[in-house]
Amino acid sequence: MTIRAAELIQRKRDGEELSREEIVELVLGYSHGAVPDYQIAAFLMAVYFRGLTPRETYALTQALIDSGETIDLGAALGRRVVDKHSTGGVGDKTSLAVGPIVAACGVPFGKMSGRGLGHTGGTLDKLESIPGFRVELSIDEFVAQVRAVGMAIVGQTAELVPADKALYALRDVTATVDQLSLIASSIMSKKIAGGADAIVLDVKVGDGAFMKSLDDARRLAEAMLSLGEQAGRTVVCLLTDMDQPLGAAVGNALEVREALATVRGRGPADFTELVLDASARLLALSDLGVDARDARRRAEAAVADGSAAAAWARWIEAQGGDPDESALERAPIVREVRAEARGAVVRLGAIRVGNAALHLGAGRRTKEETIDHAVGVVCLRKRGDLVDVGDVLAVVHARDETSADEAVREVRAAYELGAEAPPAQPVLLEVIE
Amino acid sequence: MTIRAAELIQRKRDGEELSREEIVELVLGYSHGAVPDYQIAAFLMAVYFRGLTPRETYALTQALIDSGETIDLGAALGRRVVDKHSTGGVGDKTSLAVGPIVAACGVPFGKMSGRGLGHTGGTLDKLESIPGFRVELSIDEFVAQVRAVGMAIVGQTAELVPADKALYALRDVTATVDQLSLIASSIMSKKIAGGADAIVLDVKVGDGAFMKSLDDARRLAEAMLSLGEQAGRTVVCLLTDMDQPLGAAVGNALEVREALATVRGRGPADFTELVLDASARLLALSDLGVDARDARRRAEAAVADGSAAAAWARWIEAQGGDPDESALERAPIVREVRAEARGAVVRLGAIRVGNAALHLGAGRRTKEETIDHAVGVVCLRKRGDLVDVGDVLAVVHARDETSADEAVREVRAAYELGAEAPPAQPVLLEVIE
Repeated sequence: MTIRAAELIQRKRDGEELSREEIVELVLGYSHGAVPDYQIAAFLMAVYFRGLTPRETYALTQALIDSGETIDLGAALGRRVVDKHSTGGVGDKTSLAVGPIVAACGVPFGKMSGRGLGHTGGTLDKLESIPGFRVELSIDEFVAQVRAVGMAIVGQTAELVPADKALYALRDVTATVDQLSLIASSIMSKKIAGGADAIVLDVKVGDGAFMKSLDDARRLAEAMLSLGEQAGRTVVCLLTDMDQPLGAAVGNALEVREALATVRGRGPADFTELVLDASARLLALSDLGVDARDARRRAEAAVADGSAAAAWARWIEAQGGDPDESALERAPIVREVRAEARGAVVRLGAIRVGNAALHLGAGRRTKEETIDHAVGVVCLRKRGDLVDVGDVLAVVHARDETSADEAVREVRAAYELGAEAPPAQPVLLEVIE
Repeated sequence: MTIRAAELIQRKRDGEELSREEIVELVLGYSHGAVPDYQIAAFLMAVYFRGLTPRETYALTQALIDSGETIDLGAALGRRVVDKHSTGGVGDKTSLAVGPIVAACGVPFGKMSGRGLGHTGGTLDKLESIPGFRVELSIDEFVAQVRAVGMAIVGQTAELVPADKALYALRDVTATVDQLSLIASSIMSKKIAGGADAIVLDVKVGDGAFMKSLDDARRLAEAMLSLGEQAGRTVVCLLTDMDQPLGAAVGNALEVREALATVRGRGPADFTELVLDASARLLALSDLGVDARDARRRAEAAVADGSAAAAWARWIEAQGGDPDESALERAPIVREVRAEARGAVVRLGAIRVGNAALHLGAGRRTKEETIDHAVGVVCLRKRGDLVDVGDVLAVVHARDETSADEAVREVRAAYELGAEAPPAQPVLLEVIE
């Protein structure tokens, strides 16, 4: 088996296209223990340099799906189920707000999510800052909850795409994470196996995202659209700005609070716009039979009339969490970061803010680290805002004085002030469908 | 440790130069089990695409040497010790003939060698076709034998460059063997740790060699010269033709027979020329204090006066082997491959002949396969020879009729006949020193 794998690695290394059967042989061989991790590691690095063709990428996606169970949510519920996924960014709590709005409009929302590593947080980590919240539901519990309360966000079960889990762990330690086809197949295998009929993909672009340029983001979006289409799913990709953090809050409990505020109609402007846009697109892709304009109107109404907030409470309770905002832990140290000059915010570095939150304890540098749910950063001023000396730019929530001092320095360095505000840039850069 | 290794892999992947300490961390970390094989596999593939700088290559070579023991043969014997190494080719039995000639001229020859895989044979496999011959000597036995009979060719002990052994095994199954810096550091770490003061490196070029072009061979030669120089060893590189097999015999016992014939002055022209040239260069690099012309004269005299043949017998006996040529096994089936047309031999494909011998059982496709020492191919006609219909081109020595039939077809296909003989090309293409 290893001789055959070595030959396949060599052919990929030399730029050849592998057949569907050969990709399956490697991926399922790895999943079943017949191909050792060191051969897959070499294969992944060859893929990093040579890429995968669209056919190879689809074969990989299918092999990942075939490595485990799949869920047919639509059939189980007799409804068209929608899902939303983000490629990950700083302050990205979009799913937490989109789910309740969509559910409030009567469309089933079922999402499996992951944990965070490095400067971007994971949706599960954010949810676990809610006391009592259970992220580990069985597939049956997941389906039952979507049926009963209209939505669920749970951890990916071990039964779904196990080969993706193994492959991702290997990519993480072999410097082969940031490869477009590998990212596309990893995301889409999970989405397809998870059973949603229509999926809105939020592809983050900029300093704080995997995709640094709009061109790379477009290529990733197109690769994922193509994979979705081939699997018979409707996919829409939003390319959104990640040069600065999304919204104001970065850090788990702080982000949950901001998501809830947004569901109640009191969120930051950029985040609110993205949440409403994504929600409306999901409604338009659902079986409600509404057009884009009507969908947007319904999403706004769900926020305005309190039905989205009610859906939030039902959802959190269904998963065992305390829906009361005051149950969320607060960090003992709160420090303001004030402007030392007058001017306009020219840049607010997403990675720098993300790292400040990471160093405060809001994220994990290694898989073994635990998360401090209370800490983080709230960025009150964003790109384009005018500030005067002494104005509060951001607020740091810390566990102790030392980490607070460090975070204040890091957050201040993330703000670049200049004489003139840069041209306004919307959070939603482009839609590919 | 693995996080740090992932960072080093990423930096190499992105084309950065790693420091000596970082290379040591990876290689010795791997050797000691602190860095897992999958990370080294990804690193090797990144090296395949990005290469290593001269500084990195030297750091790697030193790290390989530092992973185990080293021998100072010169100090142990109070003499300048010479060694010869080939990058491997079809029918390459040069060391078997060079050793006795050099030893007969009074210069200590100590060589550690490897086994063959694929279409090129290993020196140890060839020697093991001699009944009783022991290739596994301890370091003390190795030194004692060079002192007592002037030469020894033994298997590389596990104490020397263990990290190279581990790394090579990993390269072999991850399609990362054919990378210049990795080849250069692997060869030179063994040569330097093995203790020879002066080394003649035979870099094979052509169809049947790792290096397909003269340019690649030159780059490998220069990399190895530079590594030798930095370690205080004198190195001369011969770039020699491997478009066709070297000499006539391909297959273990057949090659031993041809080496002995050559030591006795009755070898094929191309092989004899390479043996005498390499022997003379080693003598000129030794402590005999002779110039190139005198060295060549002495090598020729050792063959002519029988002292080289006597040195052969002393050497084989010292390692427990039967020096009588008739003790070598002969294959039961001998079949001639005859020319089906009249013309000149335009090409004799080295890989094809190598593969014919491999399929007969003379080599191993996997490390687990055993070798049939008796079988192989003897190519009586070589490039440039004129043949008539019915002339014997080659002789196949096989274990059974089926494999003989197959080999006859393969060997015939290796011969390309044309109207005109190609321009003559010497076996020695270039010398780099």
